Amino acid sequence: MSIQFGPDYVRAIAPYQGGRPIAEVAREFGLDEARIVKLASNENPLGMPESAKKAIALAIADAGRYPDGNGFELKAALTAKYGVPAEWITLGNGSNDILELSAHAFVQPGQSVIYAQYSFAVYPLATQAVGGRSLVVAAKDFGHDLEAMIDAIEDDTRLIFIANPNNPTGTFIPGHEIESFLKRVPPNVVVVLDEAYTEFLAPELQYDSIAWVAQYPNLLVSRSMSKVYGLAGLRIGYGIAQPGITDLLNRIRQPFNVNSLAQAAAIAALNDTEFVKKSAELNAAGYHQLTQAFDALKLMYVPSCGNFVLVKVGDDDGAGARINLALLKQGVIVRPVGNYGLPQWLRISIGLEEENAICLAALKKALA
Amino acid sequence: MSIQFGPDYVRAIAPYQGGRPIAEVAREFGLDEARIVKLASNENPLGMPESAKKAIALAIADAGRYPDGNGFELKAALTAKYGVPAEWITLGNGSNDILELSAHAFVQPGQSVIYAQYSFAVYPLATQAVGGRSLVVAAKDFGHDLEAMIDAIEDDTRLIFIANPNNPTGTFIPGHEIESFLKRVPPNVVVVLDEAYTEFLAPELQYDSIAWVAQYPNLLVSRSMSKVYGLAGLRIGYGIAQPGITDLLNRIRQPFNVNSLAQAAAIAALNDTEFVKKSAELNAAGYHQLTQAFDALKLMYVPSCGNFVLVKVGDDDGAGARINLALLKQGVIVRPVGNYGLPQWLRISIGLEEENAICLAALKKALA
Repeated sequence: MSIQFGPDYVRAIAPYQGGRPIAEVAREFGLDEARIVKLASNENPLGMPESAKKAIALAIADAGRYPDGNGFELKAALTAKYGVPAEWITLGNGSNDILELSAHAFVQPGQSVIYAQYSFAVYPLATQAVGGRSLVVAAKDFGHDLEAMIDAIEDDTRLIFIANPNNPTGTFIPGHEIESFLKRVPPNVVVVLDEAYTEFLAPELQYDSIAWVAQYPNLLVSRSMSKVYGLAGLRIGYGIAQPGITDLLNRIRQPFNVNSLAQAAAIAALNDTEFVKKSAELNAAGYHQLTQAFDALKLMYVPSCGNFVLVKVGDDDGAGARINLALLKQGVIVRPVGNYGLPQWLRISIGLEEENAICLAALKKALA
Repeated sequence: MSIQFGPDYVRAIAPYQGGRPIAEVAREFGLDEARIVKLASNENPLGMPESAKKAIALAIADAGRYPDGNGFELKAALTAKYGVPAEWITLGNGSNDILELSAHAFVQPGQSVIYAQYSFAVYPLATQAVGGRSLVVAAKDFGHDLEAMIDAIEDDTRLIFIANPNNPTGTFIPGHEIESFLKRVPPNVVVVLDEAYTEFLAPELQYDSIAWVAQYPNLLVSRSMSKVYGLAGLRIGYGIAQPGITDLLNRIRQPFNVNSLAQAAAIAALNDTEFVKKSAELNAAGYHQLTQAFDALKLMYVPSCGNFVLVKVGDDDGAGARINLALLKQGVIVRPVGNYGLPQWLRISIGLEEENAICLAALKKALA
């Protein structure tokens, strides 16, 4: 009998399944990498902004040195942009790092964590990694049921994850509903408001979550620079919260968790408002393009506020996997969401106009 | 009364104190960044190899995409270099990530972890972060006392950290002693053999730890690319162990923990044997330069097998901090090690010949 290491709750974890890399799909299906369309990971189809590339080129000279573990300059850029003190900021190796740090900082084995059905896959993983107990609250219309989430709070609940907009469904909770929710959460329960997609929101939907941080010492706003800012490959995200939370996250954060090039690129991208505007506009146009085609194909989809659309590709539980495979064979990578309990659906990231067109043509063929 | 979040053991952590960044010291002491000499973080004074810079320049085009979370190409390069299967490899956001993953994967709150006095500061931090109980074994001549470490093993011991060469002391354990140690460790206790500095070993000291991995299912060899390979700013390290350990580390590893540019740079650097050779030679010459000067100054130092030297700068417990400050004022950053229980000592990284000379001149002045 071979020896088993580690606690049961760690051995029980099924690792996160990300969007498949282009090179991997090319290898497996014998395809030309250059002709593959990847709409699987909610990346910015414009890639990294030129401003960030220039910043990296300058920062390379010093990248033999350790990064600034306190991120002085990047925090200064965030302070200038959002008006929050540096003491409220935690930098993460992607916002994934912020989410996992929250679980590590606030949850002990056996204590409970609340999140919604059909919400981001990292929430259950981060909970399991610390031996936490997941309280999964049934979704309402594919989104968060905040009333039910309040009711789900138990004495030992330490953390609630809310994704707004939600991934993989794209649903949105209006700002005033989140604020009433925050008022009702007990002050010893940390709320992680995961806003990875917030920059894609139409102006009339935008709300000021960072202002709430001043009011709620148990609120942690998490942001990603992998989406609209186009820095997914560099790994950079950040959390904003009062020092009661931020101090703890910084205690358990790996001292050099954010690499030097990501810090330099992030400063440039944060100030590249032109790029963000262009990306959000491209996304809005692509959303229109995809959803018009879904309507024409009579495919049901969940109205999305993110840079992706969840679309139903069949009525049987094999549909998502089947259509996904048919798309892969045509060189189109999208995201199957069977692991989210949505085996009849696929999540398609919004790409460039021509990428969307190739994906739609392949989808039509796959459905036929 | 304000609410306290998180378990006591997390709130008790004092964050890691890294070498101070050049820009930070320049700001604090009103110095010119270009004239500061940093010998504080055991970085490669040659910086990043040109081969890695070229690889980064090529990889930037795709860095708007998520990294390959499975590190296919980098693992293939490691497989080619070390002859181990990809299933034995865990990639880390620096080897720091490998060390922390080990604690998270194998230790539950209350269980014990063994490491040596005067060993790497991340071991107690990683232990504390998971609520583990530290069993610190007294050092012998500033290094590991393996006999005493065997005796320290308790029923609930899950993990032993061994650094070879050790940081911050530079001490070395011959390969055959480690192998006899491995034979005596119970098979349910994981041994992390942290070899961040192994590439600096003189040829006659080198030993083949990776061959031991095949023999000991409880052995995890950890390696860094921040030292001889010059990639500290990029964050890349790796662990090699049999699948019983590697599977668990990969389950709790953040799915995109290693950024794309680090993966590309690492492949180039691993194959840049010329750069590694040149770096090791430069280091040997610098060690000679520094230790000759210490002898002339009648300063005691610990013979080192790494790219740094631990030197005693006074007989009172204020000596390290006092001399460190005097060096900072002269624009020389080294590492005080009071937090290691060595308040009379400083750790000086080996730099370029002229950097070593500037440091030695400043040290002479500071001691006067």
